[in-house]
Amino acid sequence: MTSKAATTRAAILEHGSRLASIQGLGDMTIGVLAADVRMSKSGLYAHFRSKEALQLAVLDAVADRFVAAVIAPTEEAGSPLLRLRRLLELWCSWTTSSLPGGCLLLSAATEFDDQPGEVRDRIVAIHQAWRDLLEVVIADAANAGELDPATDAGQLVFELTGAILACHHAHRLLRDPAAERRAKHALNTLIASHQAKPSER
Amino acid sequence: MTSKAATTRAAILEHGSRLASIQGLGDMTIGVLAADVRMSKSGLYAHFRSKEALQLAVLDAVADRFVAAVIAPTEEAGSPLLRLRRLLELWCSWTTSSLPGGCLLLSAATEFDDQPGEVRDRIVAIHQAWRDLLEVVIADAANAGELDPATDAGQLVFELTGAILACHHAHRLLRDPAAERRAKHALNTLIASHQAKPSER
Repeated sequence: MTSKAATTRAAILEHGSRLASIQGLGDMTIGVLAADVRMSKSGLYAHFRSKEALQLAVLDAVADRFVAAVIAPTEEAGSPLLRLRRLLELWCSWTTSSLPGGCLLLSAATEFDDQPGEVRDRIVAIHQAWRDLLEVVIADAANAGELDPATDAGQLVFELTGAILACHHAHRLLRDPAAERRAKHALNTLIASHQAKPSER
Repeated sequence: MTSKAATTRAAILEHGSRLASIQGLGDMTIGVLAADVRMSKSGLYAHFRSKEALQLAVLDAVADRFVAAVIAPTEEAGSPLLRLRRLLELWCSWTTSSLPGGCLLLSAATEFDDQPGEVRDRIVAIHQAWRDLLEVVIADAANAGELDPATDAGQLVFELTGAILACHHAHRLLRDPAAERRAKHALNTLIASHQAKPSER
């Protein structure tokens, strides 16, 4: 790929992510996106041979941004529990602020849950990889004596995800200004209730 | 309205609810719906003058079913806390089983959160009324000495909603067979952590 082609492709994906967060990944209008990046529709199709290929590339671009914004900054955390807390804090901010229409990874999950195919499979893979990472960090924190060794990592990830989904729902649908504060309170309470008791450390 | 017109209208809304739960309320195809109920598109438009009118009627029909399935059966509960527990149990079952594509009230919330208009307003009103009811029952339970008097009802409703949203997400996207069990565990833990301590009763 030439550097001009790569730049154009990046611009399409940047605008596409924003547009898909508002219109929905499935309803993203190719004509609007082409106008946004000042191209013709056929010019745009020269970069992505189909709407599905564009949708997959948008998902991958957003997932890469998620890694850069939420995961990468935590890699040098001093302990597994500190890493977990930082991951949750960044996830919460991401959910309210990553894109103008909210978190595309969450809205696309609802949009495509009944549409079998490559796009759905990619969304599942992104969510599963994120759950797996959280479970590993929770297990590390339990092994390090920071969390209760009886912690059910799958259950805890389920409940932490619930707080984030409630944040997205309250923020996007209800325009609730307390959404992020309530989510952080819920996340902190969940972690506190699983911390190892002093006698176990 | 004649009884035949009322029956036809009910059949359209029944099929429309199922179709919208799978395709999305915005993407619900009038042609497919008309074929489902063995009518022409123009015959269908004789009952609902616009797609938006149909969308609003589908939302109201699903909200009515929610009231009948989740709220009405709890009205004779023996105490506010028993009512709250029963509401949550029925809400959880509704979320996984109400319609073939999952809870339309949740999927429409994500679909329309960036689309100002009457449909979005109706979705907000339905969610807000449900939150208000839960807050009232929680306040009643606190006043009755069943829940801790310091319970922040808004925060508790936020966290309970999170468990339901996590259930919908795990069930619909990840096809996780443990989704409903995990949600019930999360809901029970939340209620237990807000129960009045014996010394306060």
